[in-house]
Amino acid sequence: MQRITPQEKDFPQWYQDVVKEAELAESSQVRGCGIVKPYGFAIWENIKDELNRRIKADGVENLYFPLFLPMSNLQAEAEHVEGFSPELAVVTVAGGEELQEPLAVRPTSEAVMYPTFAKWINSYRDLPLRVNQWANVVRWEKRPRPFLRWSEFLWQEGHSAFADKNEALEEMWRMLDMYREVYEWMAIPTLWGKKSESEKFAGAEITTTTEVMAKDGKAIQGATSHHLADNFAKAFDIKYLGEDGKWHFVYQNSWGMSWRTLGALIMAHGDNKGLKLPPNVAPTQVVVVPIKNTAEVSKFASDISKALAEFRVKVDNRENKSPGHKFYDWEIKGVPIRIEVGENEVADMVCTVYRRDTQEKTSVPAQHINDYVSDLLKEIQDNMFRSAKEFQQQNIVQISSIDEIEKHPGKFFLASWSEEPESEKLLKEKYSMVSRVLPKEYEDKKPTNKTCFITGEPAKHDWIFAKSY
Amino acid sequence: MQRITPQEKDFPQWYQDVVKEAELAESSQVRGCGIVKPYGFAIWENIKDELNRRIKADGVENLYFPLFLPMSNLQAEAEHVEGFSPELAVVTVAGGEELQEPLAVRPTSEAVMYPTFAKWINSYRDLPLRVNQWANVVRWEKRPRPFLRWSEFLWQEGHSAFADKNEALEEMWRMLDMYREVYEWMAIPTLWGKKSESEKFAGAEITTTTEVMAKDGKAIQGATSHHLADNFAKAFDIKYLGEDGKWHFVYQNSWGMSWRTLGALIMAHGDNKGLKLPPNVAPTQVVVVPIKNTAEVSKFASDISKALAEFRVKVDNRENKSPGHKFYDWEIKGVPIRIEVGENEVADMVCTVYRRDTQEKTSVPAQHINDYVSDLLKEIQDNMFRSAKEFQQQNIVQISSIDEIEKHPGKFFLASWSEEPESEKLLKEKYSMVSRVLPKEYEDKKPTNKTCFITGEPAKHDWIFAKSY
Repeated sequence: MQRITPQEKDFPQWYQDVVKEAELAESSQVRGCGIVKPYGFAIWENIKDELNRRIKADGVENLYFPLFLPMSNLQAEAEHVEGFSPELAVVTVAGGEELQEPLAVRPTSEAVMYPTFAKWINSYRDLPLRVNQWANVVRWEKRPRPFLRWSEFLWQEGHSAFADKNEALEEMWRMLDMYREVYEWMAIPTLWGKKSESEKFAGAEITTTTEVMAKDGKAIQGATSHHLADNFAKAFDIKYLGEDGKWHFVYQNSWGMSWRTLGALIMAHGDNKGLKLPPNVAPTQVVVVPIKNTAEVSKFASDISKALAEFRVKVDNRENKSPGHKFYDWEIKGVPIRIEVGENEVADMVCTVYRRDTQEKTSVPAQHINDYVSDLLKEIQDNMFRSAKEFQQQNIVQISSIDEIEKHPGKFFLASWSEEPESEKLLKEKYSMVSRVLPKEYEDKKPTNKTCFITGEPAKHDWIFAKSY
Repeated sequence: MQRITPQEKDFPQWYQDVVKEAELAESSQVRGCGIVKPYGFAIWENIKDELNRRIKADGVENLYFPLFLPMSNLQAEAEHVEGFSPELAVVTVAGGEELQEPLAVRPTSEAVMYPTFAKWINSYRDLPLRVNQWANVVRWEKRPRPFLRWSEFLWQEGHSAFADKNEALEEMWRMLDMYREVYEWMAIPTLWGKKSESEKFAGAEITTTTEVMAKDGKAIQGATSHHLADNFAKAFDIKYLGEDGKWHFVYQNSWGMSWRTLGALIMAHGDNKGLKLPPNVAPTQVVVVPIKNTAEVSKFASDISKALAEFRVKVDNRENKSPGHKFYDWEIKGVPIRIEVGENEVADMVCTVYRRDTQEKTSVPAQHINDYVSDLLKEIQDNMFRSAKEFQQQNIVQISSIDEIEKHPGKFFLASWSEEPESEKLLKEKYSMVSRVLPKEYEDKKPTNKTCFITGEPAKHDWIFAKSY
């Protein structure tokens, strides 16, 4: 019955197994493009709803721009085209005719939206402009991986324009905060702050990131918020007439979170039994499994589920599966609470409650089941965050020389760095590792060591380094 | 200040004007693809939420399949490929390389999903399979029109598979009912039933439709629900092992509703002042406009909006616009209720309430504003449906000969028809008109006339005919 490779044996295979066995997703006929199955999509919908609520609460309006853009648009911003050209999917034929100018499928929508922003923005009264779209984007992947790196993915992309650079910078950090909070709502702690020069978004002045630690000690870039300065404003001529009667370029941000979050969720919480979902995200928070197929047990199971109607509860009444098989299925799917009811439970008017996070079983009087589950869901949510936070803290190693990396496989490293691009190249060549983030809390602090752990040159700040997905 | 062409002067231009002036949408740089602006998108989100809620309540699960499909997939079902080939957008280059097999951008997802359905369905226990996706699709349009005919559009597409043909037929009608109810929720009556042979979805055995009457007497196909019989099952080899121990092909349906609904909404309710939104759909149900910029008026406006917090309410505090300009803006945007407050209103503790549907003004004591608005929103919703229903009934003309069409421009026609494809061709050539729907209520009735209004051959049923968008 062992359908999942142990994490310690082969973590990437464990991940593939969980994606398959928990019925989250599968590959499609088109290489690199995935199919997200109902259980996986229900998790994404929960995340999406939470994020969408927060985006709107911050005053941002949703809209929709086209999937296609003229190739020439991408060329307007030099770094942007260089960054995205190798990954484009290109439509050359439409409506039975060869197109005069080929159309790119959007890899991100700066170059789709900003020519229109130039029309919408004329006066300081039109600012700030803050919009968001939920959309699919395409970046052709040579080495696809479910959720984390598919050629097509779903995401939201926020785009804003401000008169004032500081106001833009403040928004960039606020949206990053939003992403950090959404991860915490998923019981996932992040390391957050700025990216290095070479790891920035193509066309941005500053990229900020929320980095998630997978159980194998690799990093997942969880969501990013960019300050584009006036780079795109100059490329697309986005200007406003100020109160001073003069024309100025706008300052812009863009920020995005995708269904990569599902990859992070799987890798940050999962164990050798499969997926482990925090209650906030779980499509099913409580599953009731009748142990016997008698009328009494069935009625008892139904009564319990009715008592739990305020939660996302499900009774597993499948007739062709044994209770053991059902337990196994719901563990792989990471359902936070399983309630077992059999003849003994009916006789004693109790429920046997199993929690997925600690794998403990408790007997609970049926009359108190609602209060008990309500408290337990909160406790599981908190406990999962606590465990993930502990795991994160225990797996960051402070080093002062690049040679120490070999001694600590599967760890994140905190190290004082010169921030020189050449040194990062060296690190990449030698250990397939780059800087992940300059944690915000270290931005105004002196580095622990005066010299760079790679080159021995003067260090600027302490940074986080790790291998990544 | 007249920004909108009168309907009676030029209806298509009136439509374009409303789309522009109500800030619903605009064209993009890519011919045929539109940009849906925040106000238009907020309406779509309201419709989408309502429809999504109903789809889930019916037990259907959401998921996501890829944007691209191998061209060869489309060829599996002969009628399907014939129907969609002329409208395809084709990706020939991806990731910097020429693709071995070009990829079509989905025009609809039967040929994307069904090869996977063949893998998912093995036993009768796997049935029914009922899924839905919210997605963008692309059908290259030679004559684009906002919302109604853009080369890219957003929609939902439901796909289901059943062991039993009758169960499938029942679902086809139930989903059509759902669409009819969503239109009624938008205060729009529909004419619903089957499509003729030549107007069916490419690959379907039966297509059912909800047809909406625009104010100019043209029809809009509002949403469709198809029974695909085992046409695609045979093409993609979707079989299940029955309880009888034998293999059987499944019976399938697909059903879809798109942001065409916005086009229908505009054309079914709008008038010469612009958009007219039923309260259920309106992003802003009540707008409060302060007539003077004094502290008292401003406080009063704010108090009123707080008293109306349970509704979607907005205070228009723009400083650089006159009250007249604001009235005009919100009328074009179709907001159901406008509340004007000035110094007189503050002195008398009343609100001047304007309803967009009947254009009547009433003075209402401020202390009763919540109850009044609550009742009025219901009344507007009902009244708009009643008006649209009356308009629909008044604009269907019963005819017994094709020659009568000329005498009644801008009408729907009810006529006894032979259902012969050749006669429909004739009608199309002569009057640019085809059959719209065989209303369900007439399906089991004898035709009013014994002979076909086009050919004089024996008639089968009474059908609705109209020009269409």
